[in-house]
Amino acid sequence: MNRYQLYENIKRKKTFLCVGLDTDMRKIPAHLITATEDNPIFAFNRAIIDATAPYCVALKLNTAFYESAGTDGLRQLSQSVSYVRENYPDLFIIADAKRGDIGNTSEMYARAVFEHDDFDAVTVAPYMGEDSVKPFLRAGKWAILLALTSNAGSQDFQMTVDADGERLFEKVLRVSKEWADEDSMMYVAGATQGKLLADVRRIVPNHFLLVPGVGAQSGNLAEVVQYGMNTHCGLLVNSSRQIIYADNTERFADAASAEAEKVQREMAKFL
Amino acid sequence: MNRYQLYENIKRKKTFLCVGLDTDMRKIPAHLITATEDNPIFAFNRAIIDATAPYCVALKLNTAFYESAGTDGLRQLSQSVSYVRENYPDLFIIADAKRGDIGNTSEMYARAVFEHDDFDAVTVAPYMGEDSVKPFLRAGKWAILLALTSNAGSQDFQMTVDADGERLFEKVLRVSKEWADEDSMMYVAGATQGKLLADVRRIVPNHFLLVPGVGAQSGNLAEVVQYGMNTHCGLLVNSSRQIIYADNTERFADAASAEAEKVQREMAKFL
Repeated sequence: MNRYQLYENIKRKKTFLCVGLDTDMRKIPAHLITATEDNPIFAFNRAIIDATAPYCVALKLNTAFYESAGTDGLRQLSQSVSYVRENYPDLFIIADAKRGDIGNTSEMYARAVFEHDDFDAVTVAPYMGEDSVKPFLRAGKWAILLALTSNAGSQDFQMTVDADGERLFEKVLRVSKEWADEDSMMYVAGATQGKLLADVRRIVPNHFLLVPGVGAQSGNLAEVVQYGMNTHCGLLVNSSRQIIYADNTERFADAASAEAEKVQREMAKFL
Repeated sequence: MNRYQLYENIKRKKTFLCVGLDTDMRKIPAHLITATEDNPIFAFNRAIIDATAPYCVALKLNTAFYESAGTDGLRQLSQSVSYVRENYPDLFIIADAKRGDIGNTSEMYARAVFEHDDFDAVTVAPYMGEDSVKPFLRAGKWAILLALTSNAGSQDFQMTVDADGERLFEKVLRVSKEWADEDSMMYVAGATQGKLLADVRRIVPNHFLLVPGVGAQSGNLAEVVQYGMNTHCGLLVNSSRQIIYADNTERFADAASAEAEKVQREMAKFL
């Protein structure tokens, strides 16, 4: 999916919500875990996807949750991606994997997310530099580079000021935007960073930002819009736990749907 | 395995070699890929492990290679780890996964590598800071943090000098060594970095360093020893392609054994 198609979907559906499928076997409703259900993770995801698809433009599957369930989990990750591709061709699917290694190894990660599974995008860590990121830049696919993350640890290194007065996250943005344009690169910028999103925008005015941290991590949507939105929206705002674990009874999908719709209605006001 | 046990193994076996199982379906000998062989990756690994175990103290499995083969690949990754645990209890097993995410997510990655599979250690990327690293610090297990990597891209951000004259890789070392001591943290420092290993050692004199880049990436062993070795050796020097792909006929395991023995003999001189 290209940038224009993504923006068209945002306008048509009046939402820039990304639903985060951080599916944890210990948190999904008990009734899904039965002796005859081989795929409880997929069963949960399918119900959440069906329930929230009208209110979002993207889905983000965090690979850690699937890996923690071993090969069974990874099989159900693949099932989930295939299910979305077949049933919701307008949804943008992100592998939130934070990968990155030397060139020949990043190439293997790119194969995993873009060939073995048919993700549209993968999150990538910048520490190892250009040759660790470039293998993810494929025609029709996206690398989403970590710039300014939503967690407390973002203060440890990302805010380091260099001899020229530039903070590390700013250097990551400035240097990496030469590696690819806004048609194959996006950036992660945390909703919890408030006004700093304006500093991100100064360097990458046209790129899409994947913004985690609204919801359970308490980022504020109005602030994200104020400092992060551009003329083509330029935002995919993710919410995971607040939507997918809104309820843990047999009504979990309805509750997720209601929660996603609530966010969509708020987003519609800003579009 | 703790630091003392690792050092005892190094002294007893007269080697600090780590064999990197970067097992790529397109590079393993053709005779292993047959209609009746369900597990060619594991068959290759088992032969390489048997052939090189006398000459190494550690094995490093780069997860990218297994992920690129989908759930089949990951099943064979698990098989390989179990095989080492059962047959070579003195080998230290590293998941070269370069993981790292917000705290609750890193915890899921830690479960994957330490509970679902029984790795001793996992490589971790520092960009997201303290709360992304701490979930990997478990009793009896190891986090191996990226400090100064072996690739060209290490110049992009790791060498950035801050306002106090400190380079980013030095800051990563200085700050992160407060999160855990040398009994649960190691660092990645590339063999290709030469004299810079001495700068790493100034900050972390007692930690083990995992040193990739000897062999196909052309790092020099004598230089690594000169600048990186400490009184308890303190080095795990990795070689992947040069050993495991030394030959691609039915004699591949013998060739790998000979190559590993050659490196071991060179290492013995330095111990």
